[in-house]
Amino acid sequence: MALKLEPGARLVVATHNPGKARELAAILDGRFTIVTAGDLGLGEPEETEATFSGNALLKARAAADASGLIALADDSGLSVAALDGAPGVYSARWAGPDKDFALAMRKVEERLDASGSEDLSAWFTCALALAWPRGPAVVVEGRVDGALTFPGRGDKGFGYDPIFTPEGERLTFGEMDPAAKDAMSHRARAFAKLKAAVL
Amino acid sequence: MALKLEPGARLVVATHNPGKARELAAILDGRFTIVTAGDLGLGEPEETEATFSGNALLKARAAADASGLIALADDSGLSVAALDGAPGVYSARWAGPDKDFALAMRKVEERLDASGSEDLSAWFTCALALAWPRGPAVVVEGRVDGALTFPGRGDKGFGYDPIFTPEGERLTFGEMDPAAKDAMSHRARAFAKLKAAVL
Repeated sequence: MALKLEPGARLVVATHNPGKARELAAILDGRFTIVTAGDLGLGEPEETEATFSGNALLKARAAADASGLIALADDSGLSVAALDGAPGVYSARWAGPDKDFALAMRKVEERLDASGSEDLSAWFTCALALAWPRGPAVVVEGRVDGALTFPGRGDKGFGYDPIFTPEGERLTFGEMDPAAKDAMSHRARAFAKLKAAVL
Repeated sequence: MALKLEPGARLVVATHNPGKARELAAILDGRFTIVTAGDLGLGEPEETEATFSGNALLKARAAADASGLIALADDSGLSVAALDGAPGVYSARWAGPDKDFALAMRKVEERLDASGSEDLSAWFTCALALAWPRGPAVVVEGRVDGALTFPGRGDKGFGYDPIFTPEGERLTFGEMDPAAKDAMSHRARAFAKLKAAVL
């Protein structure tokens, strides 16, 4: 089986978040018919892995095998050098059940203060996995390096965007227009790699 | 970048075990030049993941990025239904630093006795990952189902082979000639999927 996505293929996106599914569909240029794991009534597997790629693969594999369709999943987050890569794969979990990223960003600042380190280096990672039912999977990662910025600035992004300034930029991800962020984001880089591999 | 392995490509196999590297080279029909992670002086990453595929991917990714070569890694083990999939990714670790699989097989039998379950169902899984340096990775899994067999029989295989009888067979993996085992093993199934995907 060749690892190619034919135009018109039906893809299941391993998310229960319709906003995220729409966003992924847009990135894929409308070339595919997209259904979500939620649409199909699929469960959400536990994210047991210690790496972004591992979790993306786990989610794509589960959705593909349960649906019989080619499945796309992502996993992404913020890693802070002075915190040995935390929150990393726990980025969403630091925000708690209410997805309170103001809380999560305070936690990053507190841990950094407690560490005594002055190193503000941080990076966002996005892993994407595309899995064929009971077949192979393709996994890619995109990464963007930058610096933590306190206090956070901007309300255009989501998650940890207000406290992250990409290398060579003056604006935080929270201050950037979506198009500017999309031109350099970890997610954009991951999609570029995925498209190069399978389209 | 297309996910194809050109004949003659130089591959690094993410193992420090020369026997395993030779075996992988043989399975790949001598089409590639094989070096090992040990030959290149690469470190061995910690196997942090909870799935075979996750660990294979982690090892291939680390070897590819450190060497600049396309890297192949595997992760495999025995899962017992009555033990919720244990030893699973801990299959090698149950044998301890001395790789004492007699000890590991006794542990399986003791845990099974302690569980009170009479379900002997078990399966071997082999995950293979092929990673391009700073690029995509392809991950496949092969699986063979069977039943635990006590006392174990045969000394032709390795690891947990003596206590595993594949479905529809009378001999344990430990009693089978290598060619017979290779015709049905989890590893053979994983390689067949990988070859179909990238050759």
